[in-house]
Order: sequence, then structure tokens, then C-alpha cells
Amino acid sequence: MTVLFEKRINDLRGFLGSGEAALVTDEVNIGYFTGFFHSEGALLVTENSAFLLVDFRYAEAAQKQASGCEVICFQTLSASLTALLTAEGVQCLHAEASHITVSRYEFFRKKCGEQHVDIVADGRLDKHIGSLRVIKTQDELDKIAKAQQIAEAAYSELLNDVRPGVSERELAARLEFYMKQRGAEAVSFDLITITGKKTSLPHGVPSLDTVQEGDFFTCDFGAVYAGYHSDTTRTVAVGSATEEMRQVYAVVLQAQLAALKAIKPGVPCSEVDKTARDIITAAGYGDCFGHSTGHGVGLYIHELPFVSSRSDMVLEPGMVITDEPGIYLPNKFGVRIEDMLAVTEDGCRNFVNLPKELIIL
Amino acid sequence: MTVLFEKRINDLRGFLGSGEAALVTDEVNIGYFTGFFHSEGALLVTENSAFLLVDFRYAEAAQKQASGCEVICFQTLSASLTALLTAEGVQCLHAEASHITVSRYEFFRKKCGEQHVDIVADGRLDKHIGSLRVIKTQDELDKIAKAQQIAEAAYSELLNDVRPGVSERELAARLEFYMKQRGAEAVSFDLITITGKKTSLPHGVPSLDTVQEGDFFTCDFGAVYAGYHSDTTRTVAVGSATEEMRQVYAVVLQAQLAALKAIKPGVPCSEVDKTARDIITAAGYGDCFGHSTGHGVGLYIHELPFVSSRSDMVLEPGMVITDEPGIYLPNKFGVRIEDMLAVTEDGCRNFVNLPKELIIL
Repeated sequence: MTVLFEKRINDLRGFLGSGEAALVTDEVNIGYFTGFFHSEGALLVTENSAFLLVDFRYAEAAQKQASGCEVICFQTLSASLTALLTAEGVQCLHAEASHITVSRYEFFRKKCGEQHVDIVADGRLDKHIGSLRVIKTQDELDKIAKAQQIAEAAYSELLNDVRPGVSERELAARLEFYMKQRGAEAVSFDLITITGKKTSLPHGVPSLDTVQEGDFFTCDFGAVYAGYHSDTTRTVAVGSATEEMRQVYAVVLQAQLAALKAIKPGVPCSEVDKTARDIITAAGYGDCFGHSTGHGVGLYIHELPFVSSRSDMVLEPGMVITDEPGIYLPNKFGVRIEDMLAVTEDGCRNFVNLPKELIIL
Repeated sequence: MTVLFEKRINDLRGFLGSGEAALVTDEVNIGYFTGFFHSEGALLVTENSAFLLVDFRYAEAAQKQASGCEVICFQTLSASLTALLTAEGVQCLHAEASHITVSRYEFFRKKCGEQHVDIVADGRLDKHIGSLRVIKTQDELDKIAKAQQIAEAAYSELLNDVRPGVSERELAARLEFYMKQRGAEAVSFDLITITGKKTSLPHGVPSLDTVQEGDFFTCDFGAVYAGYHSDTTRTVAVGSATEEMRQVYAVVLQAQLAALKAIKPGVPCSEVDKTARDIITAAGYGDCFGHSTGHGVGLYIHELPFVSSRSDMVLEPGMVITDEPGIYLPNKFGVRIEDMLAVTEDGCRNFVNLPKELIIL
């Protein structure tokens, strides 16, 4: 694994000019480059060296888990950092504009300035790291597949609990427990286990409302394994479904399948979005699909590439994205069907193995 | 409740000069001022008005739940924001330096600049909001008490599961499930359920390691209720405890009780820290207590005031803090005992009702 992390740090170095260094403070990015995820510290990558700076609470674990960098236990982060900048002859330090806060940036700017080091946060480092992370290695794909496997098994167990009278919150708590029993480190996001009219809210929050006969039950769920996220949605009916529910479900499914078919290298993300959207619009529900068709997934639950009409990215092998069109009818119900997949040389590999035809529990 | 939120927004306004406005983007702070916690939006408070800007996903929920402000559903946040700034005659906008990222700040700065509005993120707004939040109202204390009650009942149930052979992860998953079944919205932080040598890590991460006879089991846990956090730690022995374990436990308990006794209005936070630290140092374990004695708790798990040697804050009625000294012996074991309490007119009210003498399961 050391080779993997050394390669990643070298790829990061590709961004640096002479006398420049990168300061990575986003703990997910630190984990990506070092394999150590539990730090509030910082990763300093110079032309010739890489240092992971952590406080005493994380020192022992970092020594064991981090690869491809030297672990330094700091008393004061800024003091250790500036000492290293001086020792390494750094004149310009790049920080992550989309992660570092204004107050922290200003603090570092002052400390660096005292050592005649410029600090820059213009978004270029973020973009470079994003371009590295967007293409997943086999190791990363395996971890995502494992996360999905855990989540799916837990969801299948949960379906036994989805009965009239059970609260949305109870279902969310059970689903999380089932995932963690199977080895999930965490859930990918606050699980969405919603029923009835609330399914018309794409981001509905589970409450003490209970499942009723004739409801849709929408479950948007994911597990985290080794830092990697999974993301899936299924909508099922409880006991029965009206003609309108069946019809809307069929449109969403048709859109989801069409987008899935469109996914392959060379296709613009905006084209995948359009494929799903056109079907929903043609069926008369264009105004009821307010979000984009999908997003990248990996160490973050939402990352590049975004599968939306505004995206200018083109699919490449190794990208991992969701395909999740939906139709939301206010005060009635909503349907969303979501798979997560990796773009391959000639199409895509779907991580999700759950059925998609309408299930009536 | 509208009166409460109107008061809070008015208190926020106290910070503003003529022609100035505050832009609150930290979603916890947005929740504090409006009662609506699930937003990726922004709260704009001008001299005469308050606007909660949310996207379509949150519009319906925000309309129902937010108080004391007008809810505006935006297509593009910056466009809605600058339109409001112009309409309200704002010349200077304060942002939260410790929350807003450099990239978002620069983006807003550009957009505001086009409307001849200055944007400032110098930390003063953060400090003002911090000073408001640090003193809890009765309503907030009640919510914290409820969060604690949920967490405590769940922990008491968990103790039945703490037996040789059970993994740390299984215990974490169960504890979280027990909390959520009792109404917790979330856990306050990644629960720490660690055993054996790992108890020497203040921030140990639960693994597949299993509980062994003769181990310490350290459980650092908290529930979130209505946005408010609880935070408690107990260390128990499994089956038996050595003389050294008992001795270290007794020192930590003595330090914890002494700090508890020292807590009352007018006492510097640094003095509370010193009270606990002096006892641990006198017993010869000064080097094994690497963290501060406590921290504030509320809408964040860690907030003002920090009960550390470097704090310059003085206790006031309505502050909520933890008292959590510990001794950590590398490669042996660790002990931490943590209560959470509110400073009252003449001392403190302990939210925690769990025993503190050494329990041997």
C-alpha cells in the first residue's frame, strides 16, 4: 500500500512549481494521500518530502496507519508547519480554498508571512486534487463495492420491518444498526426512510410518522467502508399502489434505465442528465424533477463528476456516479430510483444488485 | 417560540452598525436564530429584516419550521442575496470567518462588489454569535437535559451487553441504536466504546477487538435532541480490576469531583482545569493527562467556554460545560470520567445521573 500512497503524493507534487508546497487540511483528502483518516491535522507536501502533522491524540494511530509520509506530532500546528517550510526552503504554500476557512487561512497567512512564505488559496490545488480523486483505482472500486454490499444486505433485512405502524425513525435506526453490524464504519449520510406524502420531499427527514397501508416507502441509504461511500435509493409500496403511483413509478424507472444505458466513456455528464430528464419531461412531469440526475461518489458522498445539465465534464473509465432520477408530486407522493455505478471501458458496472421493478410489500 | 427567535435575531442585530448586515451560513447558527436546522442556505439579517434563503429542497420544511424571519426560496443563492442587499440598502456585509471557506468568501466578495457592497470576515461576527450562544436559556437547558436522559438510558441498557467476546464496534452500533430508539436524532459524535489497552487513547476508534475479562471499558457517548448535544464518559471494569487500575481510577475520580466542586459563577475556566490537573499531577500522573479538563456543549459538541489552562473565560450562570479529567497510560489502560453540567447562580447542576464509583461488571 505504501507504493499506492507514494504514487498519490507524487501525483499531487505534479501540481507544484519550484519552491512550492501543498498544505492539505481536508481530512478526507489527507486520508486519500496517506491512508490515515482520523486526523484534525495537516499534510504538507514539498518538492522532496511529505509530512503528516497530527496532535498527540492521533500520533500513535497515525504512526501505525499512515503511509508514504513522515508523521510529526505537533504541540502547535502553525509552529511545526512554519519550521518545516523554512527547513524545506518553501517560498509559496498552496492551501485548499474550498476547505480552509477564512479565519484559519488568515492565521496561516500571518504565520507564513513572518517566515517570508506566501500562502495562496485560489482553488487550483482543490481542482488538482479533484482531478486525481475523480478516477478511482481498482482498490477504491473494491471498497465502494464492499460498502454497497453491506448497505444492500442491511436494506434487504430492513424490508422485513417495513409494516404499517412502524415509525420512519425506527426504520432509520434499524437500517443503520443493520449496516454497522455488517461492518459499516458509518452511514454515508443521514438515512432517508420516509413514507406517504413525505416521499414528495427529496430530502425528507424521518420523523415519528408511521408507515401506512397504501404508502410509498422511499429509502435513500448508504454505508461507509474504509472511508468509501455507497449510495442507493429504492421506493417500494406498502400493501397496495394506486394507478397513479404505478404510472409515476414506471416513468422514473424508464428514465433511470435510459440514463444507465447512456453511461459510457466519452459521453458528457450533461447528456446523461438530459437522457433521464427528457423522458420525465415527455411524460409531463418535467417540473417535478427538481434535482440533477446524479453525482460522483467516493470518499465524499457528493463529489465530482456532477451528472447535471450544467456539468462540463465527460465520463471516463474509473469514474463512479449515481443515476437517480425522481418525480415528486407535492402533497401526494414521490418516487426516486438510484443506482451507483463505475464507468468502464465500454459502459458501466452497476454496484447495485437490488431489483428495480415496483415491489409491493 | 417566535418571540424567542425574534429576540435572538435582535440580539444579533446589536452587532450591526448603520447600513450593515450579517450573513450567517453555519447551519447550526442558522438553526439557533431561526429554529430551522436542515438548511444549506443562508440567513441574512439586516437592520430591519431577516431572510432565510433556502433552495427548493428545503423550502416547504423551512416555511413550516423557521420563525422570526422571511423564508425565500432561491434559484441562485448569490443572486437572491445581492438582490436583497440592494433592496435593503446594505453597504457592508459581515460573514462568519470561522465558518465560510476562502472560495465561498471570494465568490461572495466578487458578487457583492458588483453591487458596491463590502464583505468583511474578520472574526467579529463569530465572536458576537459565540457570546450569545454561550449562555443557555431554560429552553436550551431542557433540551440538553432531554438529550442526556436519552443517552443515559441507552448507556444503562448497553451495560447488559458488555461481556467478554463482544466487539467494540458491536457495542457502538448497539448504543447508537438504543439512543435512536429513545428519540435521539443523532449521536453527538462518533461514539467511543473501547476496551483494554486501547483505553489509553483518548480518541480511540472502536474496532473488531473484543472485550476481555479484566479490561477497562471506556464509553464516551452523547445523544442529540432538538439540535442539542449531550456528552458523558464512564469507565467500568469487566470482571475484575488490578490494584493499579483501581488506584488510577481513584485519582481520576478525585480530580473530577474536585473540579465539579470548583464550578460556580466568577471562577475562571483555567482555575477549574487547574483544580483537576493539580490532583492528577500530585499523584504523579501529570504527563498522562494530555487534554483539557472540559469544554462547552450545546448546539455543537465542542463550543465555548473551553475549560483549559489557556482559557481566559470566567464561568457565568447558564454556561454548559463538561468536567472530564483522565489518565492515560500508554500500552496499559486509560480512565476518563466525564459529567456535563450547567453553571447555576451558586454552583452547578449536573445533568448526569450515573454512578461514578468504580463499577466492576
